[in-house]
Amino acid sequence: MDEGKSRARGNGRELLDPLFVSVRLREVFSDHGRLQAMLEVEAALARAEARCGIVPAAAAAAIAACCRAEAFDVGQLAEAAGRAGNPAIPLVMALTALVGDRNAEAAAFVHWGATSQDVMDSGLILQLREVLRHIEGGLEQLSGLLADMAERHRGTLIAGRTWLQQAQPSTFGLKAAGWLSANERHRARLAEIRPRLLVLQFGGAVGTLASLGERGMAVAAALAEELGLALPDLPWHSQRDRLAELAAVLGLLVGSLGKVARDISLLMQTEVGEVFEPAGPGRGGSSAMPHKRNPVASASVLAAAIRVPGLVSTMLAAMIQEHERGLGNWLAEWETLPEICVLAGGAVEQMAAVLEGLEIDAERMRDNIGLTHGLIFSASAAMALAPHLGARAAHAVVEDCSRRAIAEDRELRDVLAGHPAVRAHLTEAGLDALFDPAKSLGLAGVYVDRVLAAWRERR
Amino acid sequence: MDEGKSRARGNGRELLDPLFVSVRLREVFSDHGRLQAMLEVEAALARAEARCGIVPAAAAAAIAACCRAEAFDVGQLAEAAGRAGNPAIPLVMALTALVGDRNAEAAAFVHWGATSQDVMDSGLILQLREVLRHIEGGLEQLSGLLADMAERHRGTLIAGRTWLQQAQPSTFGLKAAGWLSANERHRARLAEIRPRLLVLQFGGAVGTLASLGERGMAVAAALAEELGLALPDLPWHSQRDRLAELAAVLGLLVGSLGKVARDISLLMQTEVGEVFEPAGPGRGGSSAMPHKRNPVASASVLAAAIRVPGLVSTMLAAMIQEHERGLGNWLAEWETLPEICVLAGGAVEQMAAVLEGLEIDAERMRDNIGLTHGLIFSASAAMALAPHLGARAAHAVVEDCSRRAIAEDRELRDVLAGHPAVRAHLTEAGLDALFDPAKSLGLAGVYVDRVLAAWRERR
Amino acid sequence: MDEGKSRARGNGRELLDPLFVSVRLREVFSDHGRLQAMLEVEAALARAEARCGIVPAAAAAAIAACCRAEAFDVGQLAEAAGRAGNPAIPLVMALTALVGDRNAEAAAFVHWGATSQDVMDSGLILQLREVLRHIEGGLEQLSGLLADMAERHRGTLIAGRTWLQQAQPSTFGLKAAGWLSANERHRARLAEIRPRLLVLQFGGAVGTLASLGERGMAVAAALAEELGLALPDLPWHSQRDRLAELAAVLGLLVGSLGKVARDISLLMQTEVGEVFEPAGPGRGGSSAMPHKRNPVASASVLAAAIRVPGLVSTMLAAMIQEHERGLGNWLAEWETLPEICVLAGGAVEQMAAVLEGLEIDAERMRDNIGLTHGLIFSASAAMALAPHLGARAAHAVVEDCSRRAIAEDRELRDVLAGHPAVRAHLTEAGLDALFDPAKSLGLAGVYVDRVLAAWRERR
Amino acid sequence: MDEGKSRARGNGRELLDPLFVSVRLREVFSDHGRLQAMLEVEAALARAEARCGIVPAAAAAAIAACCRAEAFDVGQLAEAAGRAGNPAIPLVMALTALVGDRNAEAAAFVHWGATSQDVMDSGLILQLREVLRHIEGGLEQLSGLLADMAERHRGTLIAGRTWLQQAQPSTFGLKAAGWLSANERHRARLAEIRPRLLVLQFGGAVGTLASLGERGMAVAAALAEELGLALPDLPWHSQRDRLAELAAVLGLLVGSLGKVARDISLLMQTEVGEVFEPAGPGRGGSSAMPHKRNPVASASVLAAAIRVPGLVSTMLAAMIQEHERGLGNWLAEWETLPEICVLAGGAVEQMAAVLEGLEIDAERMRDNIGLTHGLIFSASAAMALAPHLGARAAHAVVEDCSRRAIAEDRELRDVLAGHPAVRAHLTEAGLDALFDPAKSLGLAGVYVDRVLAAWRERR
Repeated sequence: MDEGKSRARGNGRELLDPLFVSVRLREVFSDHGRLQAMLEVEAALARAEARCGIVPAAAAAAIAACCRAEAFDVGQLAEAAGRAGNPAIPLVMALTALVGDRNAEAAAFVHWGATSQDVMDSGLILQLREVLRHIEGGLEQLSGLLADMAERHRGTLIAGRTWLQQAQPSTFGLKAAGWLSANERHRARLAEIRPRLLVLQFGGAVGTLASLGERGMAVAAALAEELGLALPDLPWHSQRDRLAELAAVLGLLVGSLGKVARDISLLMQTEVGEVFEPAGPGRGGSSAMPHKRNPVASASVLAAAIRVPGLVSTMLAAMIQEHERGLGNWLAEWETLPEICVLAGGAVEQMAAVLEGLEIDAERMRDNIGLTHGLIFSASAAMALAPHLGARAAHAVVEDCSRRAIAEDRELRDVLAGHPAVRAHLTEAGLDALFDPAKSLGLAGVYVDRVLAAWRERR
Repeated sequence: MDEGKSRARGNGRELLDPLFVSVRLREVFSDHGRLQAMLEVEAALARAEARCGIVPAAAAAAIAACCRAEAFDVGQLAEAAGRAGNPAIPLVMALTALVGDRNAEAAAFVHWGATSQDVMDSGLILQLREVLRHIEGGLEQLSGLLADMAERHRGTLIAGRTWLQQAQPSTFGLKAAGWLSANERHRARLAEIRPRLLVLQFGGAVGTLASLGERGMAVAAALAEELGLALPDLPWHSQRDRLAELAAVLGLLVGSLGKVARDISLLMQTEVGEVFEPAGPGRGGSSAMPHKRNPVASASVLAAAIRVPGLVSTMLAAMIQEHERGLGNWLAEWETLPEICVLAGGAVEQMAAVLEGLEIDAERMRDNIGLTHGLIFSASAAMALAPHLGARAAHAVVEDCSRRAIAEDRELRDVLAGHPAVRAHLTEAGLDALFDPAKSLGLAGVYVDRVLAAWRERR
Repeated sequence: MDEGKSRARGNGRELLDPLFVSVRLREVFSDHGRLQAMLEVEAALARAEARCGIVPAAAAAAIAACCRAEAFDVGQLAEAAGRAGNPAIPLVMALTALVGDRNAEAAAFVHWGATSQDVMDSGLILQLREVLRHIEGGLEQLSGLLADMAERHRGTLIAGRTWLQQAQPSTFGLKAAGWLSANERHRARLAEIRPRLLVLQFGGAVGTLASLGERGMAVAAALAEELGLALPDLPWHSQRDRLAELAAVLGLLVGSLGKVARDISLLMQTEVGEVFEPAGPGRGGSSAMPHKRNPVASASVLAAAIRVPGLVSTMLAAMIQEHERGLGNWLAEWETLPEICVLAGGAVEQMAAVLEGLEIDAERMRDNIGLTHGLIFSASAAMALAPHLGARAAHAVVEDCSRRAIAEDRELRDVLAGHPAVRAHLTEAGLDALFDPAKSLGLAGVYVDRVLAAWRERR
Repeated sequence: MDEGKSRARGNGRELLDPLFVSVRLREVFSDHGRLQAMLEVEAALARAEARCGIVPAAAAAAIAACCRAEAFDVGQLAEAAGRAGNPAIPLVMALTALVGDRNAEAAAFVHWGATSQDVMDSGLILQLREVLRHIEGGLEQLSGLLADMAERHRGTLIAGRTWLQQAQPSTFGLKAAGWLSANERHRARLAEIRPRLLVLQFGGAVGTLASLGERGMAVAAALAEELGLALPDLPWHSQRDRLAELAAVLGLLVGSLGKVARDISLLMQTEVGEVFEPAGPGRGGSSAMPHKRNPVASASVLAAAIRVPGLVSTMLAAMIQEHERGLGNWLAEWETLPEICVLAGGAVEQMAAVLEGLEIDAERMRDNIGLTHGLIFSASAAMALAPHLGARAAHAVVEDCSRRAIAEDRELRDVLAGHPAVRAHLTEAGLDALFDPAKSLGLAGVYVDRVLAAWRERR
């Protein structure tokens, strides 16, 4: 029985991962990833303290050599963490023992001057740096796909829909430009929070770094340098706004992706049929219905958009941390923020897969505009009559003709053409122009161009 | 390298489990647990259809024999689930193949007439039955511990505190009785939702069970019987109130446990020191501070109480499922409800561990009442003066004397004794009685008795 | 300038009320409603204490006579509440002053032995009793409307849709029966929580009722009787599960109504056009598009379904109340629970209005089933072939023919008819039957009957 | 009966406002504020279109002259909004009628080319500009108060507390510096979102501005100029990240303020007594307990910190808006975002009031450090021994001595002094230094200076 099968017997939770999360980011937040991140902080601490003359260089090397997650027994650490209240305490003990087996003197210097939270929080920041890197890469890809789509479909007619009702003609390119514009704002947000987020946490027991006396600041600076993190104004152990901010920005991102997914799944309805998620063997079928082609990737993204808001609220609620270390609220972050990250990463990846292979049926889009017998042009007609009749009277005439067009199953254009108030002011050619979708697009193309220009400039 | 260590190399997420969750319930919702639950539904379906003459008995037996989670490769199923949109589709395919290897005829009858959601939802209900059983057992234990505590400390004085200020004397027994009373209400709630929750889901593609024609109802009844579940009025595939209700009731439970944990952690403050979580090797220490004794189990419970509300909101938000099967919102439940269950189970277990070994310092409780120089008796004094002075004037006299007692660092009793309005109406003995905590307990004992009587009756 | 206009100058917030809330329940939770509920508790307390011989009968009468919200200045109370930390303290002071103006002796007995929270919580319970009454009435009406709809449309064909794709035929009656079944469960839930919720809160400063000495229990019983509330085992000032439970049950209710609203708004799409919200002057129009008929009531219900989950999570999060009175968390309930109640009441009322006048286009429903060229019958075809070919092979044949039907724009029935494996096992008549929607409804009618029978039984 | 009293008879909801919200921001979001903001957009639109030669200048002036909220009947608008689905439709109708009474020609140009959402969203942005202005002002004040506090208490000893246990000495100045540092980050965040948020929304029915043909962009630019808003790349009617971002940033702010409030309320406990909210007549008293001094402003801030996370989650959940205008989700924002703004504003104001008059008992802070018999210095002792014994052994020695100090009620210093391993390595003077709090503060002062320097630089 291979490893995959054997996992089914354990406590594993990987069955649903490919549906929901970024597998790469799941690795970052796996037990291995967590341990390795903490161990990198321990190794860097030893090196930094060696540079500051606190730890002998050989001891630092011995410590760093042991900082490999593979060397630790997750099961034992987990059990001890349950008693200790956090995983850093048993990890430090196990690391000390491991180092001690090789170099008794070095063991005395493990975790020198640090507290559990220093190691956990700085380790977390290392993980989050990887999250930023991965998601920023994904967003760049998404923007490229959307820009291409906006450009290619700059003139592709589609019904603009409000309240799920056809309202006025628009273009699929404008829809894509709207998605792109939001995506670019998320990239800007991530760039803004980067310097605030990627900072060292190192404050000792209560944030005074008293354990290192005079040399505290030098060690802190060296440690930040070792880890490639900025040195903040002061330790932030019980000020959690940096972490909650990342959660919130990812929440915004997932919300926008959810909007795209909802649009796509609505366009993919049997009765609409304008776009389709890419097909492929085993994709989006049904166990009961052989003909089904379900919007499975959109569903995954929507699932993320439904799950993440509650998780963000948890991160915000957990900010009320008591004094110099929270109780309960700190712990509440440990699985919540990673969950937000892996779901956001998954949503980005799923959306990229959808957009990369999206099938677009421009003919059906145009046909659907015809479904309303011209009612979709009612606002144009009202606007054209308004200078002659006044806005209110024009609205009333068109509303009345719309009702008749529906009741008599006729084209609105023809009903209007028979109305005396209309005939008095509009020519046949004028009416034709009003009901020509290509002439009803207003600034759609201009907006697409503006969004694309801004995107190109930022590249 | 043993299995525990090897897990650190994979995508495992078990490091924090002992801190937060019920390990037993984590098993229930592990990949293995999920697969096994779905397979039990498949096996029962085959048996039920054999009883109804649809599936040959030998085929049903062949199918049932293959319904063991160990036989499936989680990694392959996970990958396919990511494409298919749910794990049931690849599981049914893999089961069909497995059965086919042994009995080609039987393979044709795998999953007969069912849809993915039937198998997933009914499997989920089997898992939730185990959740109910486990948590109900835990709550029974908690009630026993709390009843014992309420009884033993029926007369143990403690400061009643409002807005985190000492307010009036009370008893620790009354505190425990309040915790017990809430716990008993949660038991009643779980008993009430049990019959609504433990029902079969079996409706085929859109809830008509059209796939089974005339024999649908007979199969459904047989399947419900096989699984030990009730048969609902109609399939509930897109009506998710049953699941969201369990989430909400567990949310209530965790909220109440969070209240107990907050009370305990506040009583355990250095400056209060009235109760202590049980100590033990490796429990609640600090990596930096050798003297620390942290309320780690209370912190775990509080973490659950901070995390669960957001998860419950997700379950409620996910109820808006489209038509005959939701898109995104159904998927949003798959990890959310299990997370609520394991966190609730963990909170119950942690709280039981705390209560079982809680150290109670009755002497310190009584001493702390003395901290206010008698101000804690101010309401009694005001009540005693009110019949003579009127409530408002009495309140003002005592407020004034309280201010003086604080300013002059004297006992309120003595300041009052010197106030003419007091001397006019209260004797020295009367004053002494007012400032005797044991005489200031009102109905504390009666309430304890009422709660205990009700608890005994329900046992 | 009339009163309505003058309101626009103040701090009023009524502009959006008719869109979102039950105006009746908004009154219950208006400032007037809050004050009146607290005053009713004060009046009942005076009467109860008169019955117990604590307060002179004349004083009780004098107090009760002043307990009319109209007599108090909201602005002054509000300002004082901002300083005092709750509205009961200034209300008691103002009431005492008002009583004192008429009867100085009686003034001394105002609020005798109670604490602010007693008055606020018991007043709240009186308001919630009105909420239950109002919402239960609305749900009874909803059930009646849905039962009628389920019965009338027991045989009305509609496409069953999963993942927003047409899947199999169903009936509109079954859809309504599903909505009804959920609605009836909510009625059962409200009936279950009623006795837990409608209980007196009366515990004095810390829940011992020490202020009333020996007579506490007698007063409590008399007060409960005066207010028509049950007497709980002990005061519940910092055990808030009863209130959070109501919030959760209303959250479940709103979730189910949101599901109905989503179904209706999807069916009302331009491209689907199967049902319509009732029309009327000024209903659901657009300021720009004369032809629009927007699902405005469904949108209101959906808005509630999006807003309430977050509010429920707040009620759950607020349960962690410290010791004998919470700090912040108690206050967090004061506007949150009322908001949930008025939104839930509004959703019930909006939904009743929608269902009462819902226009159902059975012809369009049937026509839409035809949109798929028979693909909607693919599961039936696969089931019919499965006994002959095996489930897997049958599924593959139908999947293949479905693909060809789409590609060649032909009816699936005809493509199947040409497939050798099909011809070998199915006759032309057999094929016709498979593609007859009325023969593809499985247990739809039976389920409708079951739900209706259960509903009738409960009436 | 004066106006205040009359309000008690209506549907008003102002009783709790001073407790929770910024009264200034409540005005901004009152019915009057909403109407006025929309009317300002209508007036600016008329002026912009006059500048572009679309509307006669006299008509624009006539329209602008009518754009005063006082002129409209909120009750009638509310009722009509309930039917129309939004308040802009009836407002535009009422405005048109009002203008028409004075200038029939002008009436025809009211709302020219706009859709309801343009007016509502751009009006909202005007309101949010006022929110930013108000909250930024409050935060500037808060930073000033905190900077002063950090400076004055740079050397004021206080117990650093982790997990609610005394851990190591720190300074009150460092605590204030931590609060200040977070506050400054929130100011930076608001500055960053300002240009993204304060943008025009103007897109007509579906975002193409088709109603204005060629002149759309000129009108949009003129309108943006009239309103003092930036012109975005394209209309954002169904891309709501800007609004959700403000919600999230305010959520972060309220979380940080909640942390300050929790710290203060914990320090204000009877058993701690280190700081006190400012006192004053009617502030924080109790209706039952004359001596109470409750942390009422902290409680208000904590209530906001409990309520806002759920509201933020609603804003995130509402982002999934369908196509060119959401259904339900747009509506879900209308009361949620204002609620977040007024609560955040209220929390800022309450916190300013607390900090302005906070009473700080430095003596009690120092005394409380003594409560642990020196255990609070255990980490220092362990660090001092570590170079001699190794970290692990040093930790064990101190842990053992700590246990004995507790058991024997002695000072840890003295127990250590008697331990052979300690005597071998530390002198009496060395021990004294370890137990001198002023020598145990590490970088506390340095950190305060860093935070203050950064704050001064930004001023």
